[in-house]
Amino acid sequence: MAEERTPVPALSAAPRGTYLRNCWYVAAWADALADEPLQRTFLEEPVALFRDGDGVAHAVEGRCPHRFAPLGHGCVSDGALQCPYHGLRFDGTGACVHNPHPGGHLPDARLKVYPLVERHALLWIWMGDPAKADAALIPDFGWLADPKWEAVKGATRAEGHYELYSDNILDLSHANFVHPALVAGAFTEGERRFWQDGDRVHSEYVHLEDYLSEGISAIVGKEGVKQDFYGQVDWHAPAVLYFDFRTGDPGTPREECLLLPSLHAFTPETPDTTHYVWATARDFALGNEEFAAVMRGALEYAFEYEDMPIIRDSHRLMRGGDFWALKPLILGGDGGGVRARRMLQRLIERERQEQAAA
Amino acid sequence: MAEERTPVPALSAAPRGTYLRNCWYVAAWADALADEPLQRTFLEEPVALFRDGDGVAHAVEGRCPHRFAPLGHGCVSDGALQCPYHGLRFDGTGACVHNPHPGGHLPDARLKVYPLVERHALLWIWMGDPAKADAALIPDFGWLADPKWEAVKGATRAEGHYELYSDNILDLSHANFVHPALVAGAFTEGERRFWQDGDRVHSEYVHLEDYLSEGISAIVGKEGVKQDFYGQVDWHAPAVLYFDFRTGDPGTPREECLLLPSLHAFTPETPDTTHYVWATARDFALGNEEFAAVMRGALEYAFEYEDMPIIRDSHRLMRGGDFWALKPLILGGDGGGVRARRMLQRLIERERQEQAAA
Amino acid sequence: MAEERTPVPALSAAPRGTYLRNCWYVAAWADALADEPLQRTFLEEPVALFRDGDGVAHAVEGRCPHRFAPLGHGCVSDGALQCPYHGLRFDGTGACVHNPHPGGHLPDARLKVYPLVERHALLWIWMGDPAKADAALIPDFGWLADPKWEAVKGATRAEGHYELYSDNILDLSHANFVHPALVAGAFTEGERRFWQDGDRVHSEYVHLEDYLSEGISAIVGKEGVKQDFYGQVDWHAPAVLYFDFRTGDPGTPREECLLLPSLHAFTPETPDTTHYVWATARDFALGNEEFAAVMRGALEYAFEYEDMPIIRDSHRLMRGGDFWALKPLILGGDGGGVRARRMLQRLIERERQEQAAA
Repeated sequence: MAEERTPVPALSAAPRGTYLRNCWYVAAWADALADEPLQRTFLEEPVALFRDGDGVAHAVEGRCPHRFAPLGHGCVSDGALQCPYHGLRFDGTGACVHNPHPGGHLPDARLKVYPLVERHALLWIWMGDPAKADAALIPDFGWLADPKWEAVKGATRAEGHYELYSDNILDLSHANFVHPALVAGAFTEGERRFWQDGDRVHSEYVHLEDYLSEGISAIVGKEGVKQDFYGQVDWHAPAVLYFDFRTGDPGTPREECLLLPSLHAFTPETPDTTHYVWATARDFALGNEEFAAVMRGALEYAFEYEDMPIIRDSHRLMRGGDFWALKPLILGGDGGGVRARRMLQRLIERERQEQAAA
Repeated sequence: MAEERTPVPALSAAPRGTYLRNCWYVAAWADALADEPLQRTFLEEPVALFRDGDGVAHAVEGRCPHRFAPLGHGCVSDGALQCPYHGLRFDGTGACVHNPHPGGHLPDARLKVYPLVERHALLWIWMGDPAKADAALIPDFGWLADPKWEAVKGATRAEGHYELYSDNILDLSHANFVHPALVAGAFTEGERRFWQDGDRVHSEYVHLEDYLSEGISAIVGKEGVKQDFYGQVDWHAPAVLYFDFRTGDPGTPREECLLLPSLHAFTPETPDTTHYVWATARDFALGNEEFAAVMRGALEYAFEYEDMPIIRDSHRLMRGGDFWALKPLILGGDGGGVRARRMLQRLIERERQEQAAA
Repeated sequence: MAEERTPVPALSAAPRGTYLRNCWYVAAWADALADEPLQRTFLEEPVALFRDGDGVAHAVEGRCPHRFAPLGHGCVSDGALQCPYHGLRFDGTGACVHNPHPGGHLPDARLKVYPLVERHALLWIWMGDPAKADAALIPDFGWLADPKWEAVKGATRAEGHYELYSDNILDLSHANFVHPALVAGAFTEGERRFWQDGDRVHSEYVHLEDYLSEGISAIVGKEGVKQDFYGQVDWHAPAVLYFDFRTGDPGTPREECLLLPSLHAFTPETPDTTHYVWATARDFALGNEEFAAVMRGALEYAFEYEDMPIIRDSHRLMRGGDFWALKPLILGGDGGGVRARRMLQRLIERERQEQAAA
């Protein structure tokens, strides 16, 4: 191991949180997993991601059954994941396929395998019953892999419960206060609507004939010109969100407005920390790296210096308490977050009952 | 939020410590609270401090009832404290006075309010029953606001239980060992006396005709000249201390000696961390900024690099145990600290009984 | 205290681990204890090390009975250990021999004393019943004090349970994967043998006629030349290991090969942290400081950047669980570690029974 990797987080003996398991979580950007494997913790379980000799991505238990080393800190040898400590190699089925020690006897230890699908430039992981993993349930983020669109994107790790992060996207009315330079008035002052549609939850913001923020005006090239504004958030349980942001000259039909589509995907690491994978795309200024750098900088700043400190501190001020037990005051902007939280509770409860029945 | 504020500390679900509540704690220097509000944690409770449109300082619950954001990391708008997350505004009575979202309906949530008094250049907070908050109980630190005196001052946050910090001031015999350059022999070698007077506890040090330390000699301009020395500490429950330090040519009547008055106020943040507010004043070299800088530097060094590491480590070595259960060896210098600890125990017990009776 | 010392670690009220007590642990390098005392934590107990006026090293309780200050952060005055806080002085019998405060009454508080022996350039501490401390039980590391040998050495503090660190030395088959530049093939590919001999456990590696690693070839001056290689590890409970590494031209009798003897001593600080004291010696290039620096650099890199991160992460991935309860997969290389773990369990159980019987 030539240079130190990020230490694995400290974990309690038993998981502290209860999670929805039979669903797709975003594990990583597909292009973040290249020759080197990755070590991650999802839902308080260590997971190693690697690509085999055919470039197919796999997710297996991230702890070697021999001496508990983080397999994702190893390397890939002959298409198998090699433990960084004593060199056992495992394939994508979790089987040990190489023992480099004298005799070379293959132990029949088998790693837990997590269904993993590469789609829309993302790696999607299923943390529940593999028999139920249906790739058709992966939400459509086709624009992330469509050459018509060019995305700036990121992935980070943040303190705070993942539901606080999905609430944050479902209630964009925080924009005026948290992101004054970026999005300003439209979200706070616009007309809002929240609704549910099967297992999905939606927030909508409409604001006509007003000035965009300085940041957004510059990005869409409409400085000092009033615009119509439409924003819609689609939440997929447990915490994968699509944000459809459109703007156009007053009166432009909504479907003809300029679109900036975004992904905000939250995967719990522990009850106190969250993996945050995000992207925002455009279908103009393609290939313009300077433009992309400005856009990426503005979004990174918004997430890391504006949203995250407030969510981290709100999380700490909850003192480990249950959200509902703390009797939060409900405002108009909470229509999306509240629906999503209740839906998630129902889905987790349904899973619990199915398991109890089985 | 343009730049990141200090994160709020992690807090357990229920408070771990037992505190005296019906008393005045120092919340902050009055001039530290200007246009920007402050977020603090006192006695394991989050508190937001802010000034209304008339400049009057208020202390309210530091957690928004909506989404638990730290209100003290917000701003003041139209004289009200505005939440940094979704912009609700609260006044000094804890009432929500502005909802910036469509409709603008004012929720009837009400923040807990803490009596706060601005006096002697300090903000004093009452963490107990507001009906019992009597400003007449605030100890007299008039010299802090008297133009005759010029103070160097500071405020910091330190690891260790607050009683270890007040013990440290009540037993100045540590000076020879911890602060050799600053105060030297007088406190360790001088004659000591400890007594109680109602709820107050006092330590006195008298040392005649000896050399002051290098640091103090330089400050009072008496290098290489023997001096008489008098020191008196007055403790006010639970942990606000006045230190009266006097020095003069041998034989000078005590009341005619040069006086350097000090404040040492300790407010528990958690059972393991303490807010430390301090000042030392002089009635000479007024307006001399260079002199003030040297004096401030010497005192800051003494507190942050000499006292605090030892108190932090002593706190850790107590391993969370009760002070008396650890059967500390009692030396002559403990006469003040022991009286103060016993008095504080009695006051806390009295409060418990009053509450049980009510 | 002119500059800040390493803070003492946070400790729980009761020890969390169970340790072998009637045995010798390495406390420090003898030359690391000079005029200044040292503060350490062994087996979750604070210990102060100091030398008296005759230069004799002593180990006493590292917490002052007065105000719980870390005695090892004090100084030595008149041959006694002086508390950094209020100046009480203690001698090597744990008795208070000086009270600098008026009256000077000597309290009859007595510090716990730990038998300490200076031998083989090391300080050995006995954390159990002093009546049973027999210096004859100290393993022979005479080469560390023999002028024929010149050692590069170090001491560090590492995250992870100490048994994971001793396992690491008993199973050198990790070398190919963790230390590719340093030791390479011989340990992973060589013939291995493990055996027990009284309370001692041994691992042996033999590998004939092969190239040494780049790092080792350079050190022993055998680049590009095949060598015979012999390695033997001797484990002394609970975690002091001798590593006998020999190499020579093919066919050279083992006892005539070039020897590089090593010490690897692990002393638990807490169940999660370990003091690691190490040395490797040579009987050539004596006095060659440049050579020594390269050798030291290579070994430090191997321990701090290669072994430690993997062991820290493996420790974390054990999630506080018992090693055997986690049902580790056993490979051929574990023959030493498994024997040592079982022996240590037996020795601890024997100690428990003796204590129950007494």
